[in-house]
Amino acid sequence: MYTLRKKAAQTKARLGTLQTDHGEIQTPIFMPVGTLGSVKAVSQDDLVNKIKAQIILGNTYHLYLRPGNEIMQAAGGLHGFMGWDKPILTDSGGYQIFSLSDIRDLKEKGATFQSHLDGSKHLFTPENVVDTQRILGSDIMMILDECPPWPAEYDYVKESMGLTHRWAKRGREHFLKTDPIYGHKQHQFGIVQGGTYKDLRKESSEFMASLDFEGLAIGGLSVGEPTDIMYEITDFNTDHLPEDKPRYLMGVGTPANLIQCVALGIDMFDCVMPTRNARNGTIFTRNGRVNVRNAKWKHHHKLLDPDFPSDLCRRYNMSYIHHLIKSDEILGLELTSLHNLTFYLWLMEQIREQIKNDTFQEWYPRMMEQVEQRI
Amino acid sequence: MYTLRKKAAQTKARLGTLQTDHGEIQTPIFMPVGTLGSVKAVSQDDLVNKIKAQIILGNTYHLYLRPGNEIMQAAGGLHGFMGWDKPILTDSGGYQIFSLSDIRDLKEKGATFQSHLDGSKHLFTPENVVDTQRILGSDIMMILDECPPWPAEYDYVKESMGLTHRWAKRGREHFLKTDPIYGHKQHQFGIVQGGTYKDLRKESSEFMASLDFEGLAIGGLSVGEPTDIMYEITDFNTDHLPEDKPRYLMGVGTPANLIQCVALGIDMFDCVMPTRNARNGTIFTRNGRVNVRNAKWKHHHKLLDPDFPSDLCRRYNMSYIHHLIKSDEILGLELTSLHNLTFYLWLMEQIREQIKNDTFQEWYPRMMEQVEQRI
Ligand SMILES: [Zn+2]
Ligand SMILES: [Zn+2]
Repeated sequence: MYTLRKKAAQTKARLGTLQTDHGEIQTPIFMPVGTLGSVKAVSQDDLVNKIKAQIILGNTYHLYLRPGNEIMQAAGGLHGFMGWDKPILTDSGGYQIFSLSDIRDLKEKGATFQSHLDGSKHLFTPENVVDTQRILGSDIMMILDECPPWPAEYDYVKESMGLTHRWAKRGREHFLKTDPIYGHKQHQFGIVQGGTYKDLRKESSEFMASLDFEGLAIGGLSVGEPTDIMYEITDFNTDHLPEDKPRYLMGVGTPANLIQCVALGIDMFDCVMPTRNARNGTIFTRNGRVNVRNAKWKHHHKLLDPDFPSDLCRRYNMSYIHHLIKSDEILGLELTSLHNLTFYLWLMEQIREQIKNDTFQEWYPRMMEQVEQRI
Repeated sequence: MYTLRKKAAQTKARLGTLQTDHGEIQTPIFMPVGTLGSVKAVSQDDLVNKIKAQIILGNTYHLYLRPGNEIMQAAGGLHGFMGWDKPILTDSGGYQIFSLSDIRDLKEKGATFQSHLDGSKHLFTPENVVDTQRILGSDIMMILDECPPWPAEYDYVKESMGLTHRWAKRGREHFLKTDPIYGHKQHQFGIVQGGTYKDLRKESSEFMASLDFEGLAIGGLSVGEPTDIMYEITDFNTDHLPEDKPRYLMGVGTPANLIQCVALGIDMFDCVMPTRNARNGTIFTRNGRVNVRNAKWKHHHKLLDPDFPSDLCRRYNMSYIHHLIKSDEILGLELTSLHNLTFYLWLMEQIREQIKNDTFQEWYPRMMEQVEQRI
C-alpha cells in the first residue's frame, strides 16, 4: 500500500503515498481524531473542504461501546455510519482500555475491562479487535497491544513487550484468514513497543517487521516522557524499521513535534491536541501559539492572520473570537477546532513541499522555533 | 422603511418588504436569535448561505454586560464585531431584566438590576437603551418596556402599560434627537402591551401608533398563556395596528404558531425555540416534530428527508444523528441547530410563496396540522 517517493538528503524525512480503496494519502500526514465517529465540533464537509483532511482516525474502544458493533455493521461500517468516503484508520482500543476503563485485567488471552459508561464487562482479544475493525471497515486497522506507562522498569516493559508480540502474531494470523465485509481492502499495522529501552525497541521493531504488516507504528511514546527522550527513541526506532513500510508515530503531538519527527523519518501522526486545545482556547498558528482567552485579545479588533486560510484567521476579529470563547459560545469551539486542524494539515502540506523542493533541511529548525513562540 | 406589497384575500396575511441600509427583508420573516452576538452553534456564513437568514436578532441586555459598550463601539458595532453585514434587530433588554437578573427595581426613571453574571448593578432607562442600541448599531432597535407576566390582574397590567407608554414617549424623543454612529440608518419600533385585556391592547396600540415608530411590536404574549388566548389577542391586536407599519410578534413560536399568526396579520417573528430545542434533540420538519433522542432512530440507517435542503436531512443518516446527540457530540448540536433554522426560514419562504400565489388560505390549516405531527 505504501510507495516511498523521495528521501530527503540531510534528514530522515520521507515523501510517500499510501494507497487505499478510499483514495490516496500523501505522506507525511496528520490524521484528525474522530473518537466517536465525529471529529469534535467539525463537520465532515469542513474536514474535506476546509481542513483538507486526507484520512481520519476512529477509536475502536469508544465505537465498540457506542453505538456498538450491531449498529455499525447495519450502517455499512464507519464510512457509511458517519457519511465519510475518504480513508479511515482505527486503533485497536488497547490504549483506551488502559487509560479510560475502570477495572482491567490483563491475561494471555486478552484484556478484560469495564466500560467507563455503564460498568459493563468486556473482553478484547487480539482476534476480536480484528473482527470489530472488520465491522468498522477501516482502511487501516491496528493490532491490540499493551502500552506501558512512563517511567516503567526494564523488566516490566520487556515482559509487556513479549505479550504485545504474542498478541501481534495472533492478530496478524486472524487478519490474514478473515475477509473485509464491505468490499474494500483493509490493511493492518503492527505496533512497536519497548518503552525507552533501545535494545527492546530494536527487538520489537525486528519482530514486528517479521510479521509483514502493511505498516508499522511506534507505540508507547508521548506517554509523559520528556520531549528529548521521545525524539531520541523515535530517531533510534526509525533506524530499525523497514524502508518500504509507512511509519506511524502514535499520539504525537505539538506542531514542533510533528516537524521534528518528520525529520526523524515518521510518515503518519495522530493526536487529540489540536481539537482538545482548541476547546480550551489555545490555537496553533504559523507564528506561534495563541491563548484566545488572554485579555490582550479583548480589544484586538483585527483579524489574526488575514492570509491564513481559516475562518478564525481571516473572517472574524480576535476580539470576537475572545468573546465567543469567554462566553462559552459553541461557535467559538467550532472556529478554534476548525482552525487548529486546518493549521495542522497546512503544516503537513508545507512539510511535503519543503521535502519536495529539497529545502526541508534549512526550513525545519526555523519553523520549529517559529511555531513554538507565544503570541 | 416598510412597503406593504400584498394583502391576502381571506386571511389577514400580508406580503411586504423592509428596507434597511444592510439590505431588504422579505416579510413575513423569522429572525434567528443571536443572544451574545452568535446564533448558537451556527456560523455567520451558514446563516447566510444555508439558512438564508435575512435578519438576525441580538440581545441588548446580554451584549451590554458582555462584551460591553466600550468594546462594541471600538468594534464598529455589532455588525463589525460579529462580522455580519445583513440587517440586525436588537431588543431593549427590558425582557431579560425581568427574566434573568437577580434583583430589579422598577422606578419611573428606569429599571435597576443586578447582572446575572457578576451581581454588578446597572440602570436601564428609556434613553440609555437607545444610546446602547446606537452603539450596537442595529438596523432596528426596540424601546424599553415592562412585560407583565401571565396571568396578571387588570389593574397591574393597566399601570404597567402606563409606565411603558411614558417610557415609549421618552425613548422616541431620545431616538429622534440622537444620531446613528456608524453611518447607516437605524429604525425604532414601539411595543404594544396590555396583557390579555382587549381594551388595554386597543389603547396601547393607538398610543404606540401615535408616536410614529417605524414599526410596532406586540409584546407581552407568549409568556405562558394558552395558545388560543395568544391567537385571540394577536388577532384583536393587529386590527388596531396601522396597515403601513410592520408588525412584529415578539418571542413566538412553534412552526404552527408562525403560520397561524401570519394569517392574523404578523410580519416578523423571533424565538429561541428552533435553536434551544435543537440542543435538546428536537427538530422541526415539514412532516412534523422529531425527537432525535428517541430509540426508534437508533437503527434508522436512512436519511430523514433527502429532498430537504439541510445537512441533517440529506447528508447524514438518522442513526448517526441519534448517536451524535446521545453522545453529546458538538457536531450533533451544530446539525440540529442548522436544520431547525433552515426549516424555520424555509417555512417563511413557503408562506410568502403561498400568499403570492393566492393559495395561503387553503394551504395554511393543512400545513399547521402537518408540522404539529409527531414522527
Ligand atoms: Zn466505502
Ligand atoms: Zn454595516
